[in-house]
Amino acid sequence: MATDNASTPTMDTLIALCKRRGFVFPSSDIYGGYNGFFDFGPLGVEVKNNIKQAWWKDFVHRRDDIVGLDSTIIMHPKIWVASGHVGGFSDPMVDCKETKLRYRADQLFFQEFTFTPDGEGDAMNHFVVVVEADDMNTALAERASKVARLLGKQAEGKVRAAPADGAAVIEFTESTAEQREAAFGPDATTAGTLTEPRDFNLMFETKVGPLADKSATAYLRPETAQGIFANYRNIVDTGRVKVPFGIAQVGKAFRNEITPRNFLFRSREFEQMEIEYFIQPDADWKTLHREWIDKCIDWLVSIGLPREGIGEDVHPAHKLSHYSKGTTDLTFRFPHGVQELWGIACRGDFDLTQHQEHSGKSMEYFDEQQKQKYIPHVIEPSLGVDRTFLAVLAAAYCEDEIPNDKGTPEKRSVMKFHPRIAPYKVAVFPLVKNKPELVEHARKLYERLQNRWNVFWDVSGAIGRRYRRQDEIGTPFCVTVDFDTIEQGTGVTVRDRDTTQQIRLSEDELFNYLSEKIDG
Amino acid sequence: MATDNASTPTMDTLIALCKRRGFVFPSSDIYGGYNGFFDFGPLGVEVKNNIKQAWWKDFVHRRDDIVGLDSTIIMHPKIWVASGHVGGFSDPMVDCKETKLRYRADQLFFQEFTFTPDGEGDAMNHFVVVVEADDMNTALAERASKVARLLGKQAEGKVRAAPADGAAVIEFTESTAEQREAAFGPDATTAGTLTEPRDFNLMFETKVGPLADKSATAYLRPETAQGIFANYRNIVDTGRVKVPFGIAQVGKAFRNEITPRNFLFRSREFEQMEIEYFIQPDADWKTLHREWIDKCIDWLVSIGLPREGIGEDVHPAHKLSHYSKGTTDLTFRFPHGVQELWGIACRGDFDLTQHQEHSGKSMEYFDEQQKQKYIPHVIEPSLGVDRTFLAVLAAAYCEDEIPNDKGTPEKRSVMKFHPRIAPYKVAVFPLVKNKPELVEHARKLYERLQNRWNVFWDVSGAIGRRYRRQDEIGTPFCVTVDFDTIEQGTGVTVRDRDTTQQIRLSEDELFNYLSEKIDG
Repeated sequence: MATDNASTPTMDTLIALCKRRGFVFPSSDIYGGYNGFFDFGPLGVEVKNNIKQAWWKDFVHRRDDIVGLDSTIIMHPKIWVASGHVGGFSDPMVDCKETKLRYRADQLFFQEFTFTPDGEGDAMNHFVVVVEADDMNTALAERASKVARLLGKQAEGKVRAAPADGAAVIEFTESTAEQREAAFGPDATTAGTLTEPRDFNLMFETKVGPLADKSATAYLRPETAQGIFANYRNIVDTGRVKVPFGIAQVGKAFRNEITPRNFLFRSREFEQMEIEYFIQPDADWKTLHREWIDKCIDWLVSIGLPREGIGEDVHPAHKLSHYSKGTTDLTFRFPHGVQELWGIACRGDFDLTQHQEHSGKSMEYFDEQQKQKYIPHVIEPSLGVDRTFLAVLAAAYCEDEIPNDKGTPEKRSVMKFHPRIAPYKVAVFPLVKNKPELVEHARKLYERLQNRWNVFWDVSGAIGRRYRRQDEIGTPFCVTVDFDTIEQGTGVTVRDRDTTQQIRLSEDELFNYLSEKIDG
Repeated sequence: MATDNASTPTMDTLIALCKRRGFVFPSSDIYGGYNGFFDFGPLGVEVKNNIKQAWWKDFVHRRDDIVGLDSTIIMHPKIWVASGHVGGFSDPMVDCKETKLRYRADQLFFQEFTFTPDGEGDAMNHFVVVVEADDMNTALAERASKVARLLGKQAEGKVRAAPADGAAVIEFTESTAEQREAAFGPDATTAGTLTEPRDFNLMFETKVGPLADKSATAYLRPETAQGIFANYRNIVDTGRVKVPFGIAQVGKAFRNEITPRNFLFRSREFEQMEIEYFIQPDADWKTLHREWIDKCIDWLVSIGLPREGIGEDVHPAHKLSHYSKGTTDLTFRFPHGVQELWGIACRGDFDLTQHQEHSGKSMEYFDEQQKQKYIPHVIEPSLGVDRTFLAVLAAAYCEDEIPNDKGTPEKRSVMKFHPRIAPYKVAVFPLVKNKPELVEHARKLYERLQNRWNVFWDVSGAIGRRYRRQDEIGTPFCVTVDFDTIEQGTGVTVRDRDTTQQIRLSEDELFNYLSEKIDG
């Protein structure tokens, strides 16, 4: 029996594990990497595909009222004018005139400090430091020490800096002109080098067609949602959908983040799973919104996230966009803190109305039951594949103790993926590799299982070592073909990753057993 | 029994059908479309996913020697310098000084004509017309008539143009300066407006990071293959792969085609399924190449393409790149002609060697059996998802005759998708909709089937009409729950799309029957 010591790993642990085991590599690693881009290796691509396919099965195939879509990454640029992204999809950016580095204004934090050469009683002057950090208290203190040393260069000996009396940490946008004059930027050696913030559009631009003029400008989509709105008319006209209904899409999106960070959590190229669920304008949206929130939580739990790690962050009314009726983010306890995982927004009819105005095409829907025309409202559950991947990996990561061959407890590293999400579902081992009929029998079983699932074949090393290899990559079931299998016809052993218990099953029973455990 | 009248549909038929039934829509349709971009609707996305998943299952999951990868679309720009794409991935482009339109030089065709005002015996002069077309003979004749009318404006009455004696159709690159002087471009009203061809790089450019200078320039990948080479080192170091082995990837690629054409065949945003199969430098590559060609043909047949529609185009030695040992394209009889579907190239060690030079990282592999180091060579089977989709749709399209309720033959429109590829695998019908226990029974069966496959639920209309609806979208099996099912417990009827035959099966038999037919 395993003794469970599951705990959330640090981000550094997870990044190292991802590379070591082939889950995630930095993109373009041989060229020194590329900031904000990550590649999914042999195990990672299986986990990622399993997440996407589980979502598609549960939200598209298992529902009568949701259909799928796969629209292009590059769309007509007018779509992004209509959606508001060309005008307003930006982050406030601040330049440092000294270092030429750039920062997100909303990630810069100010604090005033008092500078005291060591041994002297009086403060020499005030100064302000700015840092760009999540853990700002530590960062501010460290930065203040550095600046103090810079200021104290002429005064020999130790220098010391402490927060000025009552000086609170403030955000860049709340700082005064005087404070900005006296502020040392995050990497600057002189004060007053930070510019006022200006808008930086996060959409990646490109040119489409052989002409390189302005008319050729296009964008990589920053979200998959607009592809859904742009196809709403065609889907209503050609399908058999009736309000309420949803359109679901999985696909890449791109945001030119000023400062990508936290591994897969905020990267420049990522993947989304979005649904636009169209409802009647006078529907009871609060109840429907709540239903969607509950469904989304259930789904996260169904792929292996712990219920207690999932939280709800209800956006307060004054922070909502003018068109939004309500937004709740599902949060997750990530290695770097509790952060947004799944946004579930009630967007009213904003997007369809915008596209109606900009395209000149009617977005009205004729409701046959109500005998009236309207533009539907939408509920938008929007989930990031890469964030889900990160959450799944953090939740699966586990170090526990299991008894070794002699019964002594030994540390074990195991990825406790839900069977739906595990890269390999089953591993098949012949007990020994020098007995041809045993190997052949195991190989045939392996091939039969392969018709249905992704299966690992391993013939080398002691069985215990083979189990550990599968534990490390999270394979939930190991099937061993032994002498009894071929001599007595008593079936095979199936070993459970989490409990390490073994049971004996006939090969027919095996298929039903695995089918129930894996496919639910 | 169905009378089969399968025939390759025209491209226009296919495009119209794709839009009408929700397989493929023009991207950004409400904004007038966007040249070279297409969206996959509710049925199309299912077919496309099924193609990708069948490929992944057969080439990754069902093989011990191939692992998967999912690398980013935007990678470090040095990758494209190393691969040769920055320097040489271009098409020759020709401008028209009059119309400002641009053409691909290798798609322009010249022919000399003689101009004859009607009724007069003597030719007035020679001129040359240029067209940009696949069907150039018709196009050249039509264009010549138009130019003749332009030339004949002052001479009243009819004008006539015929090919000058012995004037052959020639390609732009083979035309003389004199011919180009006398040439009317495809859309021009005066002669001599076409420029000399110049190189146009097909990679889409963008800028990554907040700085907009030259160092920020990056590219959308024009192929997925380089992502594989860039990750080769990490996969060799972290996986358990041993030469010979392959790395497989499915993903979007982008090419800024000067003149996208033929629907999904040549679009600007498309998807690829590529494998790099690494072999020993002194392996018998000719035999391995042949094995790959045969495997690829078998796979195409296994997803429903007719064997007789597939051909082989062996690249002659003088047309191969300097690093290539041999390339064979599998062709398919598309609606617009016999064209390349799957390229299977032996690329030697060109790519890995280039990346070794440009990155400074060793690409050598230590072969434990041979006790030697080498850079592996590769065989690269490269298949387009969208071209496969187009081939699958063209092959599935069928109009035949089946007897109606009274036994009279009636025309039927049916998509004969292979069950693996069909968007819905099964449809479930309660025979009537006003008998609650019958509907409930059918609904339960529907939900059980849904755990495994994508299933259609339909309660409305006569059974015959429901069958026709499923025929149109290519559902291979229709299951009807009738009075005998619930009253006598005699199971359900299963109707086969292609033969229209019905059989009666118990519900347990049904699962095995469908599983065999659908999952092989």
